[in-house]
Amino acid sequence: MTAALINANSRPWLEGKLPEGVEPLWFEDADQLMALAPRAEVAWLDMIAPPKAREALPLMTGLKWYCAMSSGVDWLPLDLFRERGVALTNGAGIHAQSVSEYALMGMLTMAKGWREVVRAQDRHEWLPDSPGKRELLDSEVLVIGAGEIGAKIAGMLCVFGAKVTAARRTPGEGELGQDEWQGALGRFDWVILIVPSTPQTTGMFGAEQFAAMKPGAVLLNFARGTVIDQHALLAAIDSGHLGGAFLDVTTPEPLPSDHPLWSRENVHISMHLSGRAQDALFARGSARFLGNLGRYLRGEPLAHQVDLAQGY
Amino acid sequence: MTAALINANSRPWLEGKLPEGVEPLWFEDADQLMALAPRAEVAWLDMIAPPKAREALPLMTGLKWYCAMSSGVDWLPLDLFRERGVALTNGAGIHAQSVSEYALMGMLTMAKGWREVVRAQDRHEWLPDSPGKRELLDSEVLVIGAGEIGAKIAGMLCVFGAKVTAARRTPGEGELGQDEWQGALGRFDWVILIVPSTPQTTGMFGAEQFAAMKPGAVLLNFARGTVIDQHALLAAIDSGHLGGAFLDVTTPEPLPSDHPLWSRENVHISMHLSGRAQDALFARGSARFLGNLGRYLRGEPLAHQVDLAQGY
Repeated sequence: MTAALINANSRPWLEGKLPEGVEPLWFEDADQLMALAPRAEVAWLDMIAPPKAREALPLMTGLKWYCAMSSGVDWLPLDLFRERGVALTNGAGIHAQSVSEYALMGMLTMAKGWREVVRAQDRHEWLPDSPGKRELLDSEVLVIGAGEIGAKIAGMLCVFGAKVTAARRTPGEGELGQDEWQGALGRFDWVILIVPSTPQTTGMFGAEQFAAMKPGAVLLNFARGTVIDQHALLAAIDSGHLGGAFLDVTTPEPLPSDHPLWSRENVHISMHLSGRAQDALFARGSARFLGNLGRYLRGEPLAHQVDLAQGY
Repeated sequence: MTAALINANSRPWLEGKLPEGVEPLWFEDADQLMALAPRAEVAWLDMIAPPKAREALPLMTGLKWYCAMSSGVDWLPLDLFRERGVALTNGAGIHAQSVSEYALMGMLTMAKGWREVVRAQDRHEWLPDSPGKRELLDSEVLVIGAGEIGAKIAGMLCVFGAKVTAARRTPGEGELGQDEWQGALGRFDWVILIVPSTPQTTGMFGAEQFAAMKPGAVLLNFARGTVIDQHALLAAIDSGHLGGAFLDVTTPEPLPSDHPLWSRENVHISMHLSGRAQDALFARGSARFLGNLGRYLRGEPLAHQVDLAQGY
């Protein structure tokens, strides 16, 4: 029997669907998680708080496969997985639709000045003209990190008539490489960060990159807060050089209530909600888990397995 | 010489581009407009307030062509044009991109509960979960009024994975006719109104239509306030049957500050800004005017001429 440690939250999606040969170890709270951890060969813990998962992981001495539902795995002990030979799979793609819809929403609300309209409605005030007059049509957009989410965002933008350029580590035809996008920054009205969080991408966007951006351009971050040098971001906002920022992710999270980013007029904080703004998260996560569980039992390669050296 | 009465606001876009044989009569205020009106053979008055335009029109006894930049022409004296044999052209298409982007923004902000996120940021509060969890993916959308704007909205929705059905007076393949869409209302998660304002569409959406909608579905109105029975809308909102409404247009406009629609939790008022949320309005309007001015001088049929009997 393969003992699978699973959050009882997922039970409605998995009950009756687990393959033969799997013994589910359902846990309902952190105490049960810690107690069952040593028996786990397979683990899918969502939605457990990351610190609790990190506390339980060292106890899972028999673990062979850890299933994460998040796309980013920088919060997990990759070194421990590597040492113990644990396979790690992530949720890449599960959030692609939700994050992409969120990115388009973010761009459109900033283009049209929608937040001002919301506030005017709260005052019962009919605005005589639109506080934002930009269109996505013909705008130049750079998507840095052209994985599944980046590709989906690009596809959506194209139908709005935006001119989209993708940048990635190993660029394909018409895409920009790591040493190319920085020199091209001045061309873009919108820059969207959706790179994985790795040592290489930490602090990737700092004072130099902000200075190279087109005046008035907007930065959107759907990667990780650490990808941006947040002090440099604030300076670029306060100098008026940057037109605005849409931050799904920040450093730290949650952002403390006295942090200056909350109150900047052209900074939008979306509280890492983009991937969760969907009602299909557990259905998709369960389908992903079940598909990989079948592969695991048959000894086949797992889908969406993370390269523990690369970190994504 | 063809005397063309033109708002001096448009001068930067037209200066040096008017064809030979045209004498521009630039007006800078309502007094100049009234004084010059009797000399006009051609008139393009935007952006003048509609009441002023209606006051000036009877004075234009020599008028042959009136160029409007709006898509809807229900605010113009169509009977007067008909009596005097004046050709009327509208701005159909000039707003298509802007209104379509606005419609997608409206749907996405409602799907994700974005207004709640805006208010939370104003309170410096990090929300633990998304107040909205809908996706456009796989949602069923009915677009009533499949003109240029409706078609553009449908195209954008398709790339999000929504299932779009169009309804119009003279339905094409796969579209619903006037007598069909009402019976199909229960199928749709989103209903978008973008019909022209005519006697046939006035009050088109009332208690019966709201009752036929799917519980929790959302109505978006980018047509005219009069297309909806606003009392029935409020009743459908207050009963909880309707999931929400996004109203770019209302009755009247501006909506009085004590109107109940302002404060309903799931009603979004966008103050007729959708067509104006673009910086290309005058560039596009001028290009349209100049194109038609050339046709007018050559005696060719005008583009986007309104059928004065149909009203669009």
